[in-house]
Amino acid sequence: MPSIVAGVVKFQNEVFPQKKALFEQLATGQHPEALFITCSDSRIDPSLMTQTAPGELFICRNAGNIVPPHTTETGGMTASIEFAIGALGVPHIVVCGHTECGAMKGAMNLDALEKLPHTKRWLSYASAAVSIVEEKGANWTEEERMQELLKENVLLQLQHLRTHPQVAAKLAAGKLHLHGWVYDIRTGEVLAYNDETREFEKVSKRYHDRIAYHMERMQAAHAHEGHSH
Amino acid sequence: MPSIVAGVVKFQNEVFPQKKALFEQLATGQHPEALFITCSDSRIDPSLMTQTAPGELFICRNAGNIVPPHTTETGGMTASIEFAIGALGVPHIVVCGHTECGAMKGAMNLDALEKLPHTKRWLSYASAAVSIVEEKGANWTEEERMQELLKENVLLQLQHLRTHPQVAAKLAAGKLHLHGWVYDIRTGEVLAYNDETREFEKVSKRYHDRIAYHMERMQAAHAHEGHSH
Amino acid sequence: MPSIVAGVVKFQNEVFPQKKALFEQLATGQHPEALFITCSDSRIDPSLMTQTAPGELFICRNAGNIVPPHTTETGGMTASIEFAIGALGVPHIVVCGHTECGAMKGAMNLDALEKLPHTKRWLSYASAAVSIVEEKGANWTEEERMQELLKENVLLQLQHLRTHPQVAAKLAAGKLHLHGWVYDIRTGEVLAYNDETREFEKVSKRYHDRIAYHMERMQAAHAHEGHSH
Amino acid sequence: MPSIVAGVVKFQNEVFPQKKALFEQLATGQHPEALFITCSDSRIDPSLMTQTAPGELFICRNAGNIVPPHTTETGGMTASIEFAIGALGVPHIVVCGHTECGAMKGAMNLDALEKLPHTKRWLSYASAAVSIVEEKGANWTEEERMQELLKENVLLQLQHLRTHPQVAAKLAAGKLHLHGWVYDIRTGEVLAYNDETREFEKVSKRYHDRIAYHMERMQAAHAHEGHSH
Amino acid sequence: MPSIVAGVVKFQNEVFPQKKALFEQLATGQHPEALFITCSDSRIDPSLMTQTAPGELFICRNAGNIVPPHTTETGGMTASIEFAIGALGVPHIVVCGHTECGAMKGAMNLDALEKLPHTKRWLSYASAAVSIVEEKGANWTEEERMQELLKENVLLQLQHLRTHPQVAAKLAAGKLHLHGWVYDIRTGEVLAYNDETREFEKVSKRYHDRIAYHMERMQAAHAHEGHSH
Amino acid sequence: MPSIVAGVVKFQNEVFPQKKALFEQLATGQHPEALFITCSDSRIDPSLMTQTAPGELFICRNAGNIVPPHTTETGGMTASIEFAIGALGVPHIVVCGHTECGAMKGAMNLDALEKLPHTKRWLSYASAAVSIVEEKGANWTEEERMQELLKENVLLQLQHLRTHPQVAAKLAAGKLHLHGWVYDIRTGEVLAYNDETREFEKVSKRYHDRIAYHMERMQAAHAHEGHSH
Ligand SMILES: [Zn+2]
Ligand SMILES: [Zn+2]
Ligand SMILES: [Zn+2]
Ligand SMILES: [Zn+2]
Ligand SMILES: [Zn+2]
Ligand SMILES: [Zn+2]
Repeated sequence: MPSIVAGVVKFQNEVFPQKKALFEQLATGQHPEALFITCSDSRIDPSLMTQTAPGELFICRNAGNIVPPHTTETGGMTASIEFAIGALGVPHIVVCGHTECGAMKGAMNLDALEKLPHTKRWLSYASAAVSIVEEKGANWTEEERMQELLKENVLLQLQHLRTHPQVAAKLAAGKLHLHGWVYDIRTGEVLAYNDETREFEKVSKRYHDRIAYHMERMQAAHAHEGHSH
Repeated sequence: MPSIVAGVVKFQNEVFPQKKALFEQLATGQHPEALFITCSDSRIDPSLMTQTAPGELFICRNAGNIVPPHTTETGGMTASIEFAIGALGVPHIVVCGHTECGAMKGAMNLDALEKLPHTKRWLSYASAAVSIVEEKGANWTEEERMQELLKENVLLQLQHLRTHPQVAAKLAAGKLHLHGWVYDIRTGEVLAYNDETREFEKVSKRYHDRIAYHMERMQAAHAHEGHSH
Repeated sequence: MPSIVAGVVKFQNEVFPQKKALFEQLATGQHPEALFITCSDSRIDPSLMTQTAPGELFICRNAGNIVPPHTTETGGMTASIEFAIGALGVPHIVVCGHTECGAMKGAMNLDALEKLPHTKRWLSYASAAVSIVEEKGANWTEEERMQELLKENVLLQLQHLRTHPQVAAKLAAGKLHLHGWVYDIRTGEVLAYNDETREFEKVSKRYHDRIAYHMERMQAAHAHEGHSH
Repeated sequence: MPSIVAGVVKFQNEVFPQKKALFEQLATGQHPEALFITCSDSRIDPSLMTQTAPGELFICRNAGNIVPPHTTETGGMTASIEFAIGALGVPHIVVCGHTECGAMKGAMNLDALEKLPHTKRWLSYASAAVSIVEEKGANWTEEERMQELLKENVLLQLQHLRTHPQVAAKLAAGKLHLHGWVYDIRTGEVLAYNDETREFEKVSKRYHDRIAYHMERMQAAHAHEGHSH
Repeated sequence: MPSIVAGVVKFQNEVFPQKKALFEQLATGQHPEALFITCSDSRIDPSLMTQTAPGELFICRNAGNIVPPHTTETGGMTASIEFAIGALGVPHIVVCGHTECGAMKGAMNLDALEKLPHTKRWLSYASAAVSIVEEKGANWTEEERMQELLKENVLLQLQHLRTHPQVAAKLAAGKLHLHGWVYDIRTGEVLAYNDETREFEKVSKRYHDRIAYHMERMQAAHAHEGHSH
Repeated sequence: MPSIVAGVVKFQNEVFPQKKALFEQLATGQHPEALFITCSDSRIDPSLMTQTAPGELFICRNAGNIVPPHTTETGGMTASIEFAIGALGVPHIVVCGHTECGAMKGAMNLDALEKLPHTKRWLSYASAAVSIVEEKGANWTEEERMQELLKENVLLQLQHLRTHPQVAAKLAAGKLHLHGWVYDIRTGEVLAYNDETREFEKVSKRYHDRIAYHMERMQAAHAHEGHSH
């Protein structure tokens, strides 16, 4: 804890002053580009991984990056999704799993969670993904099954997302886009699901066009800056 | 979205290689120092605010930094808390609210949330805090009431935390410590609750000893490094 | 009620004796070809509509042919689906909506259900479908919106079905197939969803191959019978 | 599935045309005589068993012909009952169990349902009936216990029905009547509960008066038809 | 509060010493004759009303003397009933309502409970009783309707009791008896339901035999005591 | 049961007439001084223990004197607390546990409650207290652990009480006071929690001032009565 609180003081003294203009502008309201749903795992830093600044990602985190399907019951995820779509109008939702996920290891072996009864019940929201892996991966290694589970879990949570009324409506109107990612802690690689090929692909391939578009825009801005000097 | 996915590529190419050693070491397991519970608000970046690196904070985020009290029901927060304490053994929990919180504005005026029914129900977990503010702040300005609600909500969620068996047991054993913070988006200031004075104080005051301890340790390490050269 | 109980006596005296062999054989166990989920509406008779005999369809009926998504909660549909797939191993599930559906009219206008609070909450399982129709059909007639809702509701319930672990696993293994139908009470027409065209088509078109296969088999059996005489 | 979809085409081509007048009239609205609650079991065909036509029975079916008691929670049965009584005003409710019921076999032996957790929980709505049988049938054969369970379960579900406000009110006003039946798959026999004798009796005995009344009315209609020729 | 805590001291100094033998014997275990379920209303004192000593009544009290029906959910009443029957084996259950009941006044007029949302939902467990009264008492005075509601509510809660497995089993075995009472605060009169006449009768009439039996036994004991002197 | 119903008759004939004036006055409304929450245990008589008359205590009783924390769910305790504070405005709440509590013995050994599933789940509302005792009392005797559990459970339920909005608001306004007691069945002693010393103390010590105040007032009243003669 000493380093954390000392970090806060350092942030206030050294970091915040440099970003003062950004924070003052943000204080008037947020307009995030995406709802980013990921695991609580300490090794994931969404801002670092996406190189985004404060104000860009509305972030929900829980053990296992789970999204319960829409029911008449209310929970933190259901409410936060409703708020992100209905009140903030975010145009993208990313569900991002990751390798070495303790929650997914638990989902694979629920019996070992006897002493963590709530974790066990919570991870039952991943059980359709586990069932799929058990069905497909009868002859696979433990490692292959886990890799598949990370992907199937992300796809299942995307499916759960589609049962939320606000999500369904915006999808139908073409005003919302869903993204399924798996982040590899060890290599920094991010795989993203491609609806058409029904495969997970490297981000650089999956979003090839958009990245190229962003690069051009950046270069144009840079060139423009150059001219203006 | 273009800037986000371009950011991922940039992270992989430019940032990850520099932190490769850290990530490889983390791939073998996480030992976070704290469970950090905060709002999903896009303007909050816990790692930035605490100047921590990946691996230090196990992070749960939802609209309003709510912690439902322990019941026989399971939800994302209950499960994630159980996992953080029971499986990872984190020694600290921080509940961090913030100024300009849209969720807290909603909690103050639930009737305006008619079109966001799940958000409305979720924020009823803050209603004891709202009731306290209404009781105390009959003659206050809207702004004063909101400032008080941010604090009361954090204290209420800490109270909810104490009803979770794993939390209660570790608290009784002196192996877990709870922290209630409010982050000011506009100024970068963080206030922290002091159990003894029953007041929120600046982090630099509240954790004066620990920060000093950290500084000394850093200087000693630095001096040692100096000597060793 | 007089005609119903007189009907039972008539069934016992006149109908059952003719089907005695079938019922005696069925008494040893059921092996239904499909789980058939439809509305409780009195105007729908699944056996009549599919010209099937006892033993062929495992039937679940409720107001609105709703399938709640899988959660940690248990209800009649969740249990019956689990039983049909897990205990009986049915290879097909049909979700069949219908025109003039009172439940769907209610879903379209939930405010009018103030006096039927449970119906109102139950139909909120169709609210993602309603939201889609409101999004797409801003300029449509009431009739066009209702036609679309019947279809979207069936598709939503199929999506809910996919969140049930047993269903997901069997789908992944290719051992289970889902069918989305809408029955027109006034014309006797049944439309069936085609995954590839993403359209609802007449049954005769959608299942062209299978119907042809069945006809051939029937004719072959008939011919064979002819020969054997 | 081939025979089912071929059956739909046959229905459209051969059966519907003959009943066109009935279906066109029904398209304007339904006025069912009874809410018929029975098991999803494929071997039960309520229309066949009661020799009724479309429009006469509003049918709810689930594994075990269970009716959860009224609570503040909503489920498919609660909603469908409310709709049948409150919106359609049906004057009769039949709860119909049956012999060889897989669900009741499960209720008798819940421990064997470990792999069907939702089925197990759902069947706990029959546990008061199971407890009664265990109390009474200590010295009975397995078969005798099962026969008793089928009856006790139907009586328990009738009791659950009486806890639903709309049912209770209509019963008090004498505008609704409850019927408890057990159908024997092997013999086609239907037993019906008699409140006064507190016994299950053959339908022909239990509804002796009503059947006689129906027969007379039919004969009178027939005679009248004869005259009019 | 001063009189209450002074009362505790008085109890310890003056009352307990006289009953020391009873309390010491009770400390080894309880064998209550009845589970007594009544309203939390301060004007009801079950021990005073039944002139019973500590150890005789296992008492559950809540607003409205409500017994939720048995479901898969757990609450205080469900657990306490299970404990009383299953662990203590009490042979009688009394549900005792009372005149001037604020909870029943609320149940009659749920809309007025907008500011007490939990009370409103809790009292919906009495809504079948309210519906019955509305059906029967269209032309009654407010007072007559309330009197009827007190009775119907007690009968409804008895019906809910019968859905609890342990209760149902013991009832079937003749080892448990249910009693429905209404206590009149103003007159001290207690009415008790008679299953056979289907009427509420004065306790002196309803339990005529048992009271006579008790009197005889008392007199015999007294006479015996007399002799022994 | 004979003695209970004979007791009712005795109450009506001998006791009520003496208290007629009190009951007639109470019939116009109740203004209880405290909400008294205690165990259903037959050996506890709150009126006897506090020497209070009808009208002074609004009493809630359940197995284990449990208070579920406030959630969006409704139960008997939540509703009764809301009613007591919101509708009756009681200024004190006492949570009173007791020695030899069967419920607490169960909470200590949940595995032994396999046959009482609802009791087991209900007592999980005491599990934070059990966890604390397990943490602190590793080297204690069974008896010491039980004594501690009785206290910790009362403190936990007080903590749960504070999460109820109406309670939190009134506490903040200084209009409500919470009391945690443990009653010793064997000795008649009552221990009361002292917030400042964080210890349980004898009632005579804990409420020394209030008892003295009450005594003086009584003596003054007595003296005054003396004078007036
Ligand atoms: Zn993870
Ligand atoms: Zn916020
Ligand atoms: Zn329908
Ligand atoms: Zn069955
Ligand atoms: Zn009352
Ligand atoms: Zn107790």
